[in-house]
Amino acid sequence: MQRAKPAPQALFFDVFGTLVDWRSSVAREARAILSPHGFDLDWLAFADAWRGEYQPGMDEVRAGRIPFSKLDVLHRRNLERFLPRFDVNGLPDQVLHDLTLAWHRLDAWPEVPAALARLKARFRVAPCSNGNISLMVDLARRNNLPWDAILGSEIAGDYKPKPGVYLAACAALDLDPGHCMMVAAHSNDLASAAACGLMTGHIARPNEHGPGKGEPAPTVPVDVAGNDLADLATKLGT
Amino acid sequence: MQRAKPAPQALFFDVFGTLVDWRSSVAREARAILSPHGFDLDWLAFADAWRGEYQPGMDEVRAGRIPFSKLDVLHRRNLERFLPRFDVNGLPDQVLHDLTLAWHRLDAWPEVPAALARLKARFRVAPCSNGNISLMVDLARRNNLPWDAILGSEIAGDYKPKPGVYLAACAALDLDPGHCMMVAAHSNDLASAAACGLMTGHIARPNEHGPGKGEPAPTVPVDVAGNDLADLATKLGT
Repeated sequence: MQRAKPAPQALFFDVFGTLVDWRSSVAREARAILSPHGFDLDWLAFADAWRGEYQPGMDEVRAGRIPFSKLDVLHRRNLERFLPRFDVNGLPDQVLHDLTLAWHRLDAWPEVPAALARLKARFRVAPCSNGNISLMVDLARRNNLPWDAILGSEIAGDYKPKPGVYLAACAALDLDPGHCMMVAAHSNDLASAAACGLMTGHIARPNEHGPGKGEPAPTVPVDVAGNDLADLATKLGT
Repeated sequence: MQRAKPAPQALFFDVFGTLVDWRSSVAREARAILSPHGFDLDWLAFADAWRGEYQPGMDEVRAGRIPFSKLDVLHRRNLERFLPRFDVNGLPDQVLHDLTLAWHRLDAWPEVPAALARLKARFRVAPCSNGNISLMVDLARRNNLPWDAILGSEIAGDYKPKPGVYLAACAALDLDPGHCMMVAAHSNDLASAAACGLMTGHIARPNEHGPGKGEPAPTVPVDVAGNDLADLATKLGT
């Protein structure tokens, strides 16, 4: 810990990019689903294009232009928005649905399950993700993520980095923000959590968006930074 | 399964009485906290009196007379309501707070942790309890209950047996009620879940409220009934 603060009682985790490798997983799933339909695409570019619609899709909710919708619903809207750019048209609804659920089948970065189990022995652990509850449950079951609870956007009815999402996670566990730590591979997420009074922990994911396209280190002050989740767990004394 | 229905994809659990022995646990905790203050009470009667305020306390929320409040808040109100009947007065706020959190330190019935682990291998499992999220988290950590998510009253903003609580649990997992099963030791809980379209599983807890004071069998039609959770797990094919 770089600042003198009390040890956190709960750790909240960003998930996409921080704990799971969405890029190669979505590429793999899209290929498995669309290849049988005769498509031969740049699957990593496909994953990047989908992720590129992520923030604009949530902005509709954040700004109040549409009611809160689960991320699954936004993923489906976003998919239909960018598919024509890959000349993919006329897919049956069931295929679009299966494709949307690719986000439920992401693989964790290799060190994550064991490191999260170490952290759970000392701290309450919960995702504070923009993903919906069923998506988080499916990722946890797939990757053996031993969550104490599923917190995040669906509990709060809004999307990070809106303050209410971080504060709803703290409130669900009856903890002051100062006794909670947000853990993410994204400095903007951590800056927003810190503005709500949470402690912050950064994990390096330098290749999240492809080789050299990710954060090797935080760009904002944080309480602790790790090379990966195992390193963070060690630095938090577990 | 006594009726021909599809296998459930998720099991939702009542917790107080069904999975944990609130009566002897609250009696033990109350004794540990109040004995040092010089009180020598009938601790099981104390637990029964507290539980006796449970439904009236929630009725205030169900009827809309007060906004939704976490069960911890109602437990504290209920405590202050019945304490004078035991001639307990003038306790410091911190003692009342500790006593309220006795409900976070309940022990599971002995077969529950292993049986729940068996069920989790086949089904999504979540509490659908009137207990708040932090209370459910503490019971899970104490008793090694491997929940996929914490659902129930705090997600729904209302209390069972209001239909919205069961339906919010189904919706959180993107499942139709017909693909979910409510598991409880209380026939009224199961009747309400069935009215919402859920399948139902009963567990016998014949001594929940003291010797011979509990449900040895369901008093309403159910899809499956077990002598305990291990028996239910066997009857569900796990």
